[in-house]
Amino acid sequence: MDGAELTGKKVLITGASGFTGRHAVHYFQGAGADVTAVVRRPDIYAFDEKVSVYVCDLNDKHQVRELIRHVQPDYVLHLAGKNSVPDSWANPLLVLETNVMAVLYLLDALRCCPDVRTVIVGSRLKYTPEPGHVPAPPHPYSLSKALEEMVSLSWMSLFGQQIMLAEPGNLIGAGPSTGICSLLARHVAACEQTGKTEAFRLSGRDNTRDFLDVRDAVRAYAVLLLHGTSGRVYPVVSGVERSLGEIADLLLSMTDAEVPMRWDGASSGPDGAGKQEELPALRKLGWRPQISFEDSLRDILSDVRAHQGRITE
Amino acid sequence: MDGAELTGKKVLITGASGFTGRHAVHYFQGAGADVTAVVRRPDIYAFDEKVSVYVCDLNDKHQVRELIRHVQPDYVLHLAGKNSVPDSWANPLLVLETNVMAVLYLLDALRCCPDVRTVIVGSRLKYTPEPGHVPAPPHPYSLSKALEEMVSLSWMSLFGQQIMLAEPGNLIGAGPSTGICSLLARHVAACEQTGKTEAFRLSGRDNTRDFLDVRDAVRAYAVLLLHGTSGRVYPVVSGVERSLGEIADLLLSMTDAEVPMRWDGASSGPDGAGKQEELPALRKLGWRPQISFEDSLRDILSDVRAHQGRITE
Repeated sequence: MDGAELTGKKVLITGASGFTGRHAVHYFQGAGADVTAVVRRPDIYAFDEKVSVYVCDLNDKHQVRELIRHVQPDYVLHLAGKNSVPDSWANPLLVLETNVMAVLYLLDALRCCPDVRTVIVGSRLKYTPEPGHVPAPPHPYSLSKALEEMVSLSWMSLFGQQIMLAEPGNLIGAGPSTGICSLLARHVAACEQTGKTEAFRLSGRDNTRDFLDVRDAVRAYAVLLLHGTSGRVYPVVSGVERSLGEIADLLLSMTDAEVPMRWDGASSGPDGAGKQEELPALRKLGWRPQISFEDSLRDILSDVRAHQGRITE
Repeated sequence: MDGAELTGKKVLITGASGFTGRHAVHYFQGAGADVTAVVRRPDIYAFDEKVSVYVCDLNDKHQVRELIRHVQPDYVLHLAGKNSVPDSWANPLLVLETNVMAVLYLLDALRCCPDVRTVIVGSRLKYTPEPGHVPAPPHPYSLSKALEEMVSLSWMSLFGQQIMLAEPGNLIGAGPSTGICSLLARHVAACEQTGKTEAFRLSGRDNTRDFLDVRDAVRAYAVLLLHGTSGRVYPVVSGVERSLGEIADLLLSMTDAEVPMRWDGASSGPDGAGKQEELPALRKLGWRPQISFEDSLRDILSDVRAHQGRITE
């Protein structure tokens, strides 16, 4: 990808103060784009002063319409949403409203601008109905992401919009992630700084996951905004399964501290995030992961060492 | 069905002032049920004084929660919704919000009452995605009904609720219907009363549709509330295709007036409402249509003759 393609382009990023959003704003800003960071609350994160911050409740269709009218974007990266499976059990309505109605309001507002290219960031955890069977999503979150995808692709078909779906697996990196790599790195940093001795509990050493650095994912979203095929669903994964044992060994090799761990047993195999069937789609557009897994872990550890006191930001 | 099964049961009917709603309230009231008619506005229709009328905006989750808490129903018949395909093009957001969020708010409020049995009335026009293809609903209405079904059946799976889906085809009967039978009957009554001479335009005489009397449909909903299998989708159709020519001939045989008609040509075949594949499901529960097509047309004609002056009610 030629970075110049983004220079001066108006890129609107929703969910900008979230884990991926912060990295996305940084990347597009660095690529010369004119970035509008859409946030629900302005006090969550302090963006670079060159970034335009726009406060908007995406569940309010009038605010969303005004946002699009005001920004007139060239590209939209929709990252906002509720992403916690446990929270989706605690408040199913909220996850449905937030993940389905927000995308509907956004895409409906974008009907005014048929040249805009939009990437909707879904999830590998989305539920896929089996034809001829009663829908049985495992949790409300998976239902919300299935509906989000159906609304997005239908809006494309109905109104001729340019919409790509990105489906990231397990993204890792510096910042407010609650993924296993960040949790484990925080444990390591806590042991270094406070001599914490309670063991960190993990499932089987052989359990594997597909991990991708969030910065590689953001580059994938940029590639899709510029060159993705409208109506297509793109898995955004590394294609490499890593075991929990490997992660623990790597992180422990980066510290001198005593880091107690407890393996609670049962192996459950891969979580399916890295399923390969469509992996070549993004590679054909010239994208491939550039950041090694070791570098990702090292950066996470540096970040949590620096921010251990304020991990709840 | 033994009518006594409904005696004293609390039946909540949404969309009660609509075409089907009025017939449903009348039927359940007659069967001895304790009916709550849920309406958005109280001034649309004057119900029998024994009916409890409850004003509720189903797009307001707090109002919906209060409705369920107040009524504590045994059975819920959800008829409310936007049903116009042209309107769904004019305001796609409204049809999505009304048809999808209302059912979500209703079913979520009903999580408090796992014994409640609910019939959601969908549509034979709902879009069915083809596996492996980008979703391409023909209009926003068909998308809204597909999402409504997916939300309903998923809520059943996720929260163990008892939910049946009914999918009526073309319902006909007295009242504020905009179907072809009512429109044609209004033309006949207008010719009788005012000597109107402008021709009524219809497509090919050979075009066929599956028509079912709305009173037969309401009995089907009652059967499903009492005996339907949770998670199942029931087509509610007559199983008989009638041609437009047959309808016109029957109505003209019921009048002495001069009724000019104009056939605009092309035959398009059945609209698919009466597809047979699952028809036996309701018949196995003991339901079958009881009102002849001729009687349906005669009743529609009597109704429009009596109300011609206020067909916009």
